[in-house]
Amino acid sequence: MIINKFVAALAGTVALSAPAFANDEIIKLTQDPNQWVLQTGDYANTRYSKLNQINKDNVSKLQVAWTFSTGVLRGHEGSPLVVGDVMYVHTPFPNIVYALDLNNEGRIIWKYEPKQDPSVIPVMCCDTVNRGLAYGDGKVFLHQADTTVVALDMKTGKEVWKVVNGDPKRGETNTATVLPVKDKVIVGISGGEFGVQCHVTAYDIKTGKRVWRGYSMGPDDQTLMDPVKTTHLGKPVGKDSGINTWQGDQWKTGGGCTWGWYSYDPKLNLMYYGSGNPSTWNPKQRPGDNRWSMTIWGRDVDTGMAKWVYQMTPHDEWDFDGINEMILTDQEIGGKVTPLLTHFDRNGLGYTLNRENGDLIVAEKFDPVVNWTTGVDMNKSSPTYGRPAVVAKYSTEQNGEDVNSKGICPAALGTKDQQPAAYSPKTQLFYVPTNHVCMDYEPFKVTYTPGQPYVGATLAMYPAPNSHGGMGNFIAWDGKTGKIVWSNKEQFSVWSGALATAGDVVFYGTLEGYLKAVDSVSGKELYKFKTPSGIIGNVMTYTNKGKQYVAILSGVGGWAGIGLAAGLTDPNAGLGAVGGYAGLSNYTALGGQLTVFALPN
Amino acid sequence: MIINKFVAALAGTVALSAPAFANDEIIKLTQDPNQWVLQTGDYANTRYSKLNQINKDNVSKLQVAWTFSTGVLRGHEGSPLVVGDVMYVHTPFPNIVYALDLNNEGRIIWKYEPKQDPSVIPVMCCDTVNRGLAYGDGKVFLHQADTTVVALDMKTGKEVWKVVNGDPKRGETNTATVLPVKDKVIVGISGGEFGVQCHVTAYDIKTGKRVWRGYSMGPDDQTLMDPVKTTHLGKPVGKDSGINTWQGDQWKTGGGCTWGWYSYDPKLNLMYYGSGNPSTWNPKQRPGDNRWSMTIWGRDVDTGMAKWVYQMTPHDEWDFDGINEMILTDQEIGGKVTPLLTHFDRNGLGYTLNRENGDLIVAEKFDPVVNWTTGVDMNKSSPTYGRPAVVAKYSTEQNGEDVNSKGICPAALGTKDQQPAAYSPKTQLFYVPTNHVCMDYEPFKVTYTPGQPYVGATLAMYPAPNSHGGMGNFIAWDGKTGKIVWSNKEQFSVWSGALATAGDVVFYGTLEGYLKAVDSVSGKELYKFKTPSGIIGNVMTYTNKGKQYVAILSGVGGWAGIGLAAGLTDPNAGLGAVGGYAGLSNYTALGGQLTVFALPN
Ligand SMILES: O=C(O)c1cc(C(=O)O)c2c(n1)C(=O)C(=O)c1cc(C(=O)O)[nH]c1-2
Ligand SMILES: O=C(O)c1cc(C(=O)O)c2c(n1)C(=O)C(=O)c1cc(C(=O)O)[nH]c1-2
Repeated sequence: MIINKFVAALAGTVALSAPAFANDEIIKLTQDPNQWVLQTGDYANTRYSKLNQINKDNVSKLQVAWTFSTGVLRGHEGSPLVVGDVMYVHTPFPNIVYALDLNNEGRIIWKYEPKQDPSVIPVMCCDTVNRGLAYGDGKVFLHQADTTVVALDMKTGKEVWKVVNGDPKRGETNTATVLPVKDKVIVGISGGEFGVQCHVTAYDIKTGKRVWRGYSMGPDDQTLMDPVKTTHLGKPVGKDSGINTWQGDQWKTGGGCTWGWYSYDPKLNLMYYGSGNPSTWNPKQRPGDNRWSMTIWGRDVDTGMAKWVYQMTPHDEWDFDGINEMILTDQEIGGKVTPLLTHFDRNGLGYTLNRENGDLIVAEKFDPVVNWTTGVDMNKSSPTYGRPAVVAKYSTEQNGEDVNSKGICPAALGTKDQQPAAYSPKTQLFYVPTNHVCMDYEPFKVTYTPGQPYVGATLAMYPAPNSHGGMGNFIAWDGKTGKIVWSNKEQFSVWSGALATAGDVVFYGTLEGYLKAVDSVSGKELYKFKTPSGIIGNVMTYTNKGKQYVAILSGVGGWAGIGLAAGLTDPNAGLGAVGGYAGLSNYTALGGQLTVFALPN
Repeated sequence: MIINKFVAALAGTVALSAPAFANDEIIKLTQDPNQWVLQTGDYANTRYSKLNQINKDNVSKLQVAWTFSTGVLRGHEGSPLVVGDVMYVHTPFPNIVYALDLNNEGRIIWKYEPKQDPSVIPVMCCDTVNRGLAYGDGKVFLHQADTTVVALDMKTGKEVWKVVNGDPKRGETNTATVLPVKDKVIVGISGGEFGVQCHVTAYDIKTGKRVWRGYSMGPDDQTLMDPVKTTHLGKPVGKDSGINTWQGDQWKTGGGCTWGWYSYDPKLNLMYYGSGNPSTWNPKQRPGDNRWSMTIWGRDVDTGMAKWVYQMTPHDEWDFDGINEMILTDQEIGGKVTPLLTHFDRNGLGYTLNRENGDLIVAEKFDPVVNWTTGVDMNKSSPTYGRPAVVAKYSTEQNGEDVNSKGICPAALGTKDQQPAAYSPKTQLFYVPTNHVCMDYEPFKVTYTPGQPYVGATLAMYPAPNSHGGMGNFIAWDGKTGKIVWSNKEQFSVWSGALATAGDVVFYGTLEGYLKAVDSVSGKELYKFKTPSGIIGNVMTYTNKGKQYVAILSGVGGWAGIGLAAGLTDPNAGLGAVGGYAGLSNYTALGGQLTVFALPN
């Protein structure tokens, strides 16, 4: 299974001189388990590795092989990349990039430190995180906090091109990774708490020239929708569907941000991602379904045109951004291998759709405490087909402004937030890091001012009541049936991305700082190690000189860790997260470290 | 050998209710190798541990057991303490203190974060370091950057008392640990680059009330010298010896700071330490011997009276602060077991004295490249007895102001700086982390302004020419004969404190971030591990539940690492250190982590 990486990398590079696309190279590289060239592991976002040197029988012997301090504190999301024998490590703001020589004990080959105006920091809703680099076309792509997209020469760290995607002065920032695909790099934007009209944008991979931009709301020429050909649950969306469920001009400050993970199906030529909350968090102020916030999108990567959409949470009342990753698998449904898309939404429902046409197959709670909905109407002929039934008691819209709706599960940060799940084709199970947190939510009137917070709700968060007392679970999920297979309790939300491997092990990190390895079949804990700081990064694996390594970034932060990261103590601060996660300070302090594990020689 | 620590700790605590002194308890605790209650390991500053579970045969199997991020970047000097089952970890500015529960996977029992005005940062000459806590009388002592001395209740972290020792607005800061002894806590002060008249001060261990203060220069009632009884190389110092080698009032801004390590001999009731450079660095501006800068001191801890002094570098011309640790051993000299004091000075000479009377026994170069002196006059009847003979070519005094004296070895940061050596009674050898760095030094006229830098020289530093190319060595030294027994080359200065153990292993850290273990007899490298950041902390060891651990703080900085720590790039910046150590940025980035090692179970 272990291919010579230099040859593999070279093969990729050589392929570029032919009129091949970046994704030919990337597909080849993502099929080589010795490397890790996209944050998501592969275009399908499976976070699965075929490596099996480290396996369920020996993982308990894992040791720390080497470590690297990034020189930056606060929340470290994402993971390093490995291309050939070089590891690329990124940091939160100021978004430093290091190229480390894996053949030379992690020596720093180059360092890139962008100059960014620190005034962007207060415009970032949920810590100064960055979800990492992506590789393609001989370049390493960084999408900075201030929305500058930079292509760096992988060998020298020199800027090849640079483009500005948004304006922090208008509330636009970035935390997401990018999707290098074909001749493009596709990027999103943040700002749902600032009333930004969010979008995805494709730039030319060679030059940085803008190719297309698709907004989450707006007229068809902005959303890149075809009234007839673009479908929602099998039906044409109709003309200007991105306007006509908004009052007046509200779509212009509509949110629907695109700060999550992107996947891509080369056969269908579609990219998939979700859009975030409608702005403001006060639902009373924005009547209507607020399309296409809270929506799963399938877009043609060449033209940006939307092929299909599915709005999970029409007229959001809880900040359940729909941006979590879309995991692409081919599994048997009704005896037929079907191209599936599985998505664990903030709203607490795990969705499985047919990714070719957007058909809804499964929509089930992946945490039993979810109480804002009784479930999704799965009756195709019902007028509310595909809509979640809202429980009046937990409806902040129905309870109204200045009323504190209590005991809503999940909390605004959802049953799952940005922390990506993994999928193992061996078990055909999804491994999902989850939050087990509920909230009180009180909406209030707010006026829009460009570049100023446009939130309009006061929140308090706490562990799910009458449960195990902890704030998280790590679960295994059957995406075909929508059932939890096993569930491990965790004291805090699992804010770290999972990794599944052919060694029948699943890895994830905890907010206290443990890297954990569990049996992919039973969930049994096989190994844990206390890294320097709380983990909100994603586990990755690679080989060097034929030996398998597992790597994780530590550095507590993100929305869950914002109290520690930003030094906040008022329980309602940090959009309500500070109180809920106050106990974290008994376990860990700020950090920014890479820890690399291996078996003893 | 492994004593139940709880019993040991308790025994100590109980002893306190009797009219016993803190040092009765501390001596007991420092004799228990399971704990580490002083930065220096023991009052004798040997940094030797009787633990031998980890030894030269198995040290190669060492693993990382757990880690902890301190939440602070920049230079981490000193080490954690272990008292009972609690580890106390400190940080550089803002000088946070954590109490970690060793029985509960390092859970944070309490955290103390002083509020300090950050305007102290630019008043610190050589990074925002702090050399750590000390334990005594049920309290943990912190001496903050802003010179506030705080006694914290070891159980709760609550302030028991607090006293202000100096004023950063006048250039007074602190980086040193403190010496808890008898009914006192004795502390030093920094400010040699700001024209401070430095001193050691004793505070009441129960109340923080000031008991005595002894200055490095000034009239006898300030230096606490007796013209007759206080001796220098066996001769009475005479009246006001701390004034009469200075021009006019210059002693009032004379420096001689006391920022190093303190040792104590309970039998002789003397404490030992060295004083730093005379201010300014421009020797032309301050004619005379500048007593008692650059001096080894033996003071009575009850009264503060100086028993003897020895000035190593009269009229300093190179910033060779005499503050390095005094290691107290009893070894045979001329067939007689003699109470010795061994000191590796910045000036490149390794001194051995009789610590009872201050007799000079050995003064030899501990790096052959040292060139500013041909050696110390050891002829007792010579008028220059005990003085180093200065080589004219390297005399910045003789070359004069605005002349660049080139090729002086060692550089201003000396053949050894603050990084403490260790001594093994098994081998009777000293293990010395050294610098192998030379310099160009150009003095210039400077005027004194309170609180402003008072440096008066421009420096450039570089690896010792015509040598192995590296900037450091780790050596074994015979203190009786003044000879190097073995010497290991290092690419950078070894800025980390050594630890010698009964397992015949010596540990130290490197600026690139390696923890290294070498054979105490041969110097052979037995183990190395790349910690997250460059190491300038000191290795310590302890046991928990019968198992031996080795711990080290990473976090590059200090004078050698000031370029990285403070983000400086001009080669002459950082008092000349930035250029010399520029290569460090290829190996490591800022950090602040504790890494704890153990053998596999
Ligand atoms: O609407 C937005 O633009 C936006 C942006 C981000 C972000 O950029 O990280 C988050 C959120 N929303 C959000 O709702 C959320 O829960 C969240 C968590 C995190 C994180 O990294 O921990 N970011 C974000
Ligand atoms: O004269 C002084 O007051 C003074 C203070 C300090 C300090 O407080 O750390 C250093 C020095 N001098 C000094 O000369 C020096 O080489 C030095 C190195 C370091 C360090 O921690 O790396 N501190 C200091």
